[in-house]
Amino acid sequence: MLDKIRIILVNTTHPGNIGAAARAMKNMGLGRLYLVAPKKYPDEEAVWRAGHALDVLDNVVVTETVDEAIGDSGLVIGTSARERKIPWPLMTPREVALRAKEEPSKQDIAILFGREDRGLTNEELQKCHIHLNIPTADEYSSLNLAQAVQVVSYELRLAAFGEALPSEKETQNDKRDWDVPLASTEAMELFYAHLEQVLIDIDFHDPKTPRQTMTRLRRLFTRVRMDDMELAMLRGILKKIDKTVGGK
Amino acid sequence: MLDKIRIILVNTTHPGNIGAAARAMKNMGLGRLYLVAPKKYPDEEAVWRAGHALDVLDNVVVTETVDEAIGDSGLVIGTSARERKIPWPLMTPREVALRAKEEPSKQDIAILFGREDRGLTNEELQKCHIHLNIPTADEYSSLNLAQAVQVVSYELRLAAFGEALPSEKETQNDKRDWDVPLASTEAMELFYAHLEQVLIDIDFHDPKTPRQTMTRLRRLFTRVRMDDMELAMLRGILKKIDKTVGGK
Repeated sequence: MLDKIRIILVNTTHPGNIGAAARAMKNMGLGRLYLVAPKKYPDEEAVWRAGHALDVLDNVVVTETVDEAIGDSGLVIGTSARERKIPWPLMTPREVALRAKEEPSKQDIAILFGREDRGLTNEELQKCHIHLNIPTADEYSSLNLAQAVQVVSYELRLAAFGEALPSEKETQNDKRDWDVPLASTEAMELFYAHLEQVLIDIDFHDPKTPRQTMTRLRRLFTRVRMDDMELAMLRGILKKIDKTVGGK
Repeated sequence: MLDKIRIILVNTTHPGNIGAAARAMKNMGLGRLYLVAPKKYPDEEAVWRAGHALDVLDNVVVTETVDEAIGDSGLVIGTSARERKIPWPLMTPREVALRAKEEPSKQDIAILFGREDRGLTNEELQKCHIHLNIPTADEYSSLNLAQAVQVVSYELRLAAFGEALPSEKETQNDKRDWDVPLASTEAMELFYAHLEQVLIDIDFHDPKTPRQTMTRLRRLFTRVRMDDMELAMLRGILKKIDKTVGGK
C-alpha cells in the first residue's frame, strides 16, 4: 500500500521542510515525493535535513502544476487546517490511513500538503475527494509542514502493517518476547519460604505477630511475575544473607 | 491529562530541534518542556523554529541532570530506538498514550527523548518504567528528534480527547484502586543505592565486575512499580541486614 502513496508538497517556501518531509517519509517506509513549484529547490538545507533519506530526494518529481503532480491518481486527499465555507468529506489522519488501506483501485493515492503560511487554495482543495484535518489544540492549530507529513506518514505505516490498534494482550507485563522463562509457582513457593526464614533470622519478621509482612511481599512478587534468572538471583542474595547471619 | 506530561529532551545538540519540539507540543496541547544540559540553548534557531510556541520556550526548565528533570514524576517513559540486551516493558506511542490516560497517580508523567545521534544511554533507560518505540521502516529507523516528539504528542492528544480509541483492558498492574501512593522515582533511586551497598556488604555484588546484577534488579523493581509501604518494608529489611552484617 505504501508504494501507491504520492506525497505532494505545493509551493513549499523553506527547503528545510522538503528535506525533513523526505526523512519523515522514509522513516515510515514511504518514498514518492512530488514538489509543485517549490520556491527554492534543490538546496543544501533540504539535503541536510533529509538525513539518510537522500534517495527520496534523488527520486523527487518536480512539477509546474498541481494537476501534473496528481496525474492519474485514483484518490486525492488534501490537508486542510481551517474550516472551509463549503462542507467537504473530512477525515482524520487515522481515517485517511484506513481508507487508503481499503482503496481498491490500483491507481496511486495522492496526498497534498499546502504552503507553510496559507495551506492549499480553495481551488486546490476542490480537486480533492477527501479533506484531511490533523487534530490540534485550538490555541495553535498550524503544524509545521514536515510535522504534518510525519503524522500522516506515521498513520499510513500503522494502517499498512496492521499496527493501528494495540493488541489486546499487550500489557506492560507482557512476556511474549522475554528472554528467560517465567518462574514456576513451585519455585516461587520455595522462594517465599526461604525469604520468610531469612526475615526471621535477621529479626525483621516474627511469625507469632506477622502483621502483613508476608502478604505484602507475596503481593509484590506476584505482581512482578519474575523470570527464572531473576528468581535465581534473589535466591542467591538470600543465601549470602544466610551465610553472613550464620557467621555472626 | 496533558498538563501532567513533562517532555524531557536530554543533551540536545541542535537548538532548532528544541524549537520544533516546542511547536509540536503546543500544536497538540502540551506545554511543559524540560531540557537536560542542552548543547546550545537559548538560541535564535530555537526561537525561529518554535513559531507561535514561544510561551513553551519561555516556561522551559533547564536542568543539569536527568534525575532533576524527572523529579518526583510517578511514571517515567524513555524513547528507545534500538533493541536492548535486556528486554524491558516496551510500548508503542499509542499504547503509551492510553497508559498515560489511565495513569491514576496525581504525579507527573515524564517522557524522555535522547540525543540526536545516539538516543538515551542504558543508564538513563534503566530509570524508565516503560520504553517507548516508534514503529519505523527497517531501512531508516531514526526519526528526527522533533518528529519523534510530534508523533508521541499527537498520540497523547488523541488519547486525552478520546477520539475513537479502544479502551485499554484492565491489567494486573492497574493501580486505579490501589490503597497506597506509588513510590516516587527519587525514593526508588535511594532504594537502589541502599540495595547495591547491602549487596556489596554481603559479598553478592562487586561493582568492579558488576555483570548485570543491578540492571536486572532495577528492571525487576521498575516493572513492579512499588507503593510507598512496600518500599518502606524493603528499606526496613535492608536496614536489618545492615545491622546483622555490621554486628558480625
